[in-house]
Amino acid sequence: MPEGTNRQWVLASRPEGLAGEQNFRWTEAPVPPLKEGEVLVRNLWLSFDPTQLGWTKTDTYVPKVPLGEPMRALGVGQVVESRHPGFTAGEMVTGMLGWQDYLLTDGDRSARVQKLPPQVPASLALGLFGITGMSAYFGVTEIGRVQPGETFVVSSAAGAVGSIAGQIAKIRGAHVVGIAGGPTKCGWLRREAGFDAAIDYRSEKVGPRLSALCPRGIDVYFDNVGGEILDEVLARINLHARIVLCGGISGYATREFPPVRNYIALTVKRARMEGFLVVDYTARYPEASRALAGWLAEGRVTQKEDVATGLENAPKTLARLFTGENFGKQLLKIADPPLPVPE
Amino acid sequence: MPEGTNRQWVLASRPEGLAGEQNFRWTEAPVPPLKEGEVLVRNLWLSFDPTQLGWTKTDTYVPKVPLGEPMRALGVGQVVESRHPGFTAGEMVTGMLGWQDYLLTDGDRSARVQKLPPQVPASLALGLFGITGMSAYFGVTEIGRVQPGETFVVSSAAGAVGSIAGQIAKIRGAHVVGIAGGPTKCGWLRREAGFDAAIDYRSEKVGPRLSALCPRGIDVYFDNVGGEILDEVLARINLHARIVLCGGISGYATREFPPVRNYIALTVKRARMEGFLVVDYTARYPEASRALAGWLAEGRVTQKEDVATGLENAPKTLARLFTGENFGKQLLKIADPPLPVPE
Repeated sequence: MPEGTNRQWVLASRPEGLAGEQNFRWTEAPVPPLKEGEVLVRNLWLSFDPTQLGWTKTDTYVPKVPLGEPMRALGVGQVVESRHPGFTAGEMVTGMLGWQDYLLTDGDRSARVQKLPPQVPASLALGLFGITGMSAYFGVTEIGRVQPGETFVVSSAAGAVGSIAGQIAKIRGAHVVGIAGGPTKCGWLRREAGFDAAIDYRSEKVGPRLSALCPRGIDVYFDNVGGEILDEVLARINLHARIVLCGGISGYATREFPPVRNYIALTVKRARMEGFLVVDYTARYPEASRALAGWLAEGRVTQKEDVATGLENAPKTLARLFTGENFGKQLLKIADPPLPVPE
Repeated sequence: MPEGTNRQWVLASRPEGLAGEQNFRWTEAPVPPLKEGEVLVRNLWLSFDPTQLGWTKTDTYVPKVPLGEPMRALGVGQVVESRHPGFTAGEMVTGMLGWQDYLLTDGDRSARVQKLPPQVPASLALGLFGITGMSAYFGVTEIGRVQPGETFVVSSAAGAVGSIAGQIAKIRGAHVVGIAGGPTKCGWLRREAGFDAAIDYRSEKVGPRLSALCPRGIDVYFDNVGGEILDEVLARINLHARIVLCGGISGYATREFPPVRNYIALTVKRARMEGFLVVDYTARYPEASRALAGWLAEGRVTQKEDVATGLENAPKTLARLFTGENFGKQLLKIADPPLPVPE
């Protein structure tokens, strides 16, 4: 691309169901000159999270992305020019960079970027130490409140949040069972992520396998999918069980969800089903990051990464989250740092 | 009936769906002579609660009633003979007296009776100060945690628990909307129970009426029915809403519940849906009784009573809870106290 050109994917129409390339429009425009107080960021990595689908459709915990605006996404980038006293060229930053080559920002709330410690790789900044890891940490500890010896089940277990959630539950002493699609993912859960067991929903009947693998019932379910699997879990919950509804799936909010039949189990078992959104825990991110960094250093947590490349592939990369193709933290690498990174 | 005869309704078969007279068998047998350590109670009042239907069907928080045993029910009675050092003839007691004229008990855990202060009428002992009032109190304060200015909705609002729950929410400063069947019940909710509004689900569309009567959305829903009304409420909940699933409806546990479609609202709104059972709060009953007694004395809580008479009508009286006929706390008076009540 020509120097100084900003390529963007802007939202062209609101998806019915899943989002595809037809919902976005590719545009190219010159990067405007910086005004006093502005910062120009070269975007390097984009994060893909299920909640982004919701952003294209409807107002949720954030307003929907306006039509004609670049698709909203977290990312990691490098400051390439700064007329803002708080930023210096070469610094790495993270924030809502969007599906584009450059973000021009005055650092206001709507497009705020934060400096990233240079020793933190982008993949961890957007994964384990980003909303992915934070969602897993607070979902497991604050909503699920899993205790040693309890049985913990997670769906989309080979996804970014699910895989971290299961590992945190394991560290807290739970018996951990993951539900994922296909032998590769299930094998990874057992061998690399340290899960006690994995259920392949493509080739196994989830209900009977849950019965076999959770002989003492289910105490905590970290739900990333809803529908039939939620019903199978509800049929097997223990007294005072907790069902964590991860806010990420609000991304699917406007699609028709399969109805749930076994919610009466919540009454019979005096159980709790609770939705949460990680942004409600912003003040406590440092606590979670310290815990996760410690476990990472001790080799007790591993992050699986799923890296695509090229801004032109952004819509296809988003779609991977909803087709079962995605395996681990979904990232898109769009450039290498153009400037040396300061120590 | 002949002196010394114990008439009983024993459970004859497990109901499919609702219980009817066909599921019980009427028996008569002489009251056996008391052994050392036993107490003979003349049953006077029986309490009818939705959870009793569940007791006929399946093991829940208590084992199901064995076939051939008298139907289990709370009641108020009078000690007519005692060979137990802790009880004296004439004393009023409450406990699991069952559908029978007499309870012969050694005071063990399975059929324990407790003394009732003589100034507490049986209707209040079984209603406001019984599991009815306790369910309402802890459901509203501990699970619903309703705050001043919030909007509180309750279904089966003219039922025993629902009517008390709404009044407690009103005392706590909420905007209170009840859902009940028919103009008589709805009129009572507005005029006598102090609800801000009532919806007649028989003649009104619940969804649009909820929208009209809860213009700021719904913060707490005290659910006694599940199904479609739960879905209508879920579609209108606020951020961090709480849905209280009252354990009483576990009485319906083996019937097919209508599926719930809008549970995704729990995720989007970071809301909580939680079942509870009043027996988990036994240690705190005195606190609830003190609060309810104070409100009763101040005229801020009223208890509607629905009194049937005659042990022979026990099965029909239970059925009233599930047909919409019941209005307020359902009681069955089976005898007057045969002995003078000590002061």
